[in-house]
Amino acid sequence: MSIPSKQDLLDARTRINDIVHKTPVLTSSTLDEIIGAEVFLKCENFQRMGAYKMRGASHAVSRLNDDQLSHGVVTHSSGNFAQAIALSAKLKGIKATIVMPENAPAVKVEAVKGYGSTIVFSGSRPIDRELKVQEVIDSSGAIFIHPSNDLQVILGNSTCTQELIEEIPGLDIIIAPVGGGGLLAGTALAAHWFSPSTKVWAAEPQNVDDAFRSLLSGKIEINDKADTIADGLRTNLGDINFPIIKELVKKVLLVSEEEIIHAMWWVWERMKIIIEPSSAVAIAAVVKYKSELKGKKVGVIISGGNADIRELVSHG
Amino acid sequence: MSIPSKQDLLDARTRINDIVHKTPVLTSSTLDEIIGAEVFLKCENFQRMGAYKMRGASHAVSRLNDDQLSHGVVTHSSGNFAQAIALSAKLKGIKATIVMPENAPAVKVEAVKGYGSTIVFSGSRPIDRELKVQEVIDSSGAIFIHPSNDLQVILGNSTCTQELIEEIPGLDIIIAPVGGGGLLAGTALAAHWFSPSTKVWAAEPQNVDDAFRSLLSGKIEINDKADTIADGLRTNLGDINFPIIKELVKKVLLVSEEEIIHAMWWVWERMKIIIEPSSAVAIAAVVKYKSELKGKKVGVIISGGNADIRELVSHG
Repeated sequence: MSIPSKQDLLDARTRINDIVHKTPVLTSSTLDEIIGAEVFLKCENFQRMGAYKMRGASHAVSRLNDDQLSHGVVTHSSGNFAQAIALSAKLKGIKATIVMPENAPAVKVEAVKGYGSTIVFSGSRPIDRELKVQEVIDSSGAIFIHPSNDLQVILGNSTCTQELIEEIPGLDIIIAPVGGGGLLAGTALAAHWFSPSTKVWAAEPQNVDDAFRSLLSGKIEINDKADTIADGLRTNLGDINFPIIKELVKKVLLVSEEEIIHAMWWVWERMKIIIEPSSAVAIAAVVKYKSELKGKKVGVIISGGNADIRELVSHG
Repeated sequence: MSIPSKQDLLDARTRINDIVHKTPVLTSSTLDEIIGAEVFLKCENFQRMGAYKMRGASHAVSRLNDDQLSHGVVTHSSGNFAQAIALSAKLKGIKATIVMPENAPAVKVEAVKGYGSTIVFSGSRPIDRELKVQEVIDSSGAIFIHPSNDLQVILGNSTCTQELIEEIPGLDIIIAPVGGGGLLAGTALAAHWFSPSTKVWAAEPQNVDDAFRSLLSGKIEINDKADTIADGLRTNLGDINFPIIKELVKKVLLVSEEEIIHAMWWVWERMKIIIEPSSAVAIAAVVKYKSELKGKKVGVIISGGNADIRELVSHG
């Protein structure tokens, strides 16, 4: 396959540099002791709207021409990408429509409304939301931006690891959570072009191990169920990001629900930062597979911090 | 009065520079918008053992001579200072005894035990713990280190603001929470010597407003009750730190319990960092008195992150 060029990645960074935060890289001497490695957390929980999704969304919006901008954008998401598109559209002064499932949590609906986007509800099956998106496109000419299977989104996401590599040179491994594949593909592209000796590994809940199985079989596998606390990782890979992942990512680390919950609480209580369950998947993988990381310099993408603390206390 | 010299503060920093973490300074564009000021959070919640107390404790221990070290140290605390002395003693390889009230939370007792300190229980009244401390001194010759009313502790605490001033020059105001007065005195000394144009203000729960009343009356006032969620701020000022505070601090900002709880949740949910209720007092003060901060560069000492998340959810 042909992958995006180094220049494509650099261009993405230039385009969104003034829109997104350059997030801090945190370390923990306690974590380093436990793992027996130097671990560097790239903290996208401190990103605008609380997750790396802001990078891909704002970059995709930045690529639209005036005619496209005049029609606005549409996406489907009940999570971070909804807020990321809503905020990106607000900053650009364009209209955004977000298709959300009827059972989306009220707090997420309110967050999107707060950015001034229009919300259209659909049923909760994939086919329901896709039909609803099509309705919006047909009636308004809005440009659809997919949360993870979109090249501009992937290029935007790559800027996170571009920053990490610049700040911490010489990483042996970078671990990113994988759900829809947009973050993992962007991470792998950035390492490929800017730190080719760095391996990129994925971390995935074993309850939704489609990426693990997809790399084994060489084709996109589907999750039969989506039974994980890591709500950002329930989706499947797509035909745009999978070829990149297949070429550049050699390992997927699987973790259990108990390991995810334990890692999340450990980070909250010991490192004093709020990470969402999807990010705890990456920390859980670092802990579980520490024997493979011994003595290495390891980057971890903390993808976001939009956790419902009150709700998650019941999982402590 | 004569206050400690600039060299005393510099010496303290040199002594503990390799022991404590240089903590990061975080900002939030949302917070800046709300306050109408540039706000810089000095994040001692990321300090070793989770609070600035590590600075004062490790500095006090570093000042002991070999004979004193051979007898070990003793303090009374059910909170962060207990852990700070326990960790400092462990790193120095000396014995520490911590007098804790019988009703101290099990998790705090375990944390201190984890560092290898001896725990001696006392009744919960001040007189009970002081008698118990005296018993330890009489039987072992241990050196007593007070959590806040000790010059070496104050000098150690000053290193936090020394770092902040170095990283963010030109601050107009620094706000620190006040309980026993050890952090506030150290903060004020650092500003006095390294950034004399910077004002230092205190933030205090109105339910335990002894510092507010002490600055009004010019003598140490006592809290009749200690009814605040900010458990680190229930103590009174002392005769070593009060003269420093009286000379260098001109304003104490009072906040209600509701304002403290609201500020704590706001920081947890929006800034994605865990701060303890005592630190939320400073954020609550920034929010409440924002009209006095408009257009200024404001430093805030986030004193620690040892919050009991599960317990505090009930106060959400």
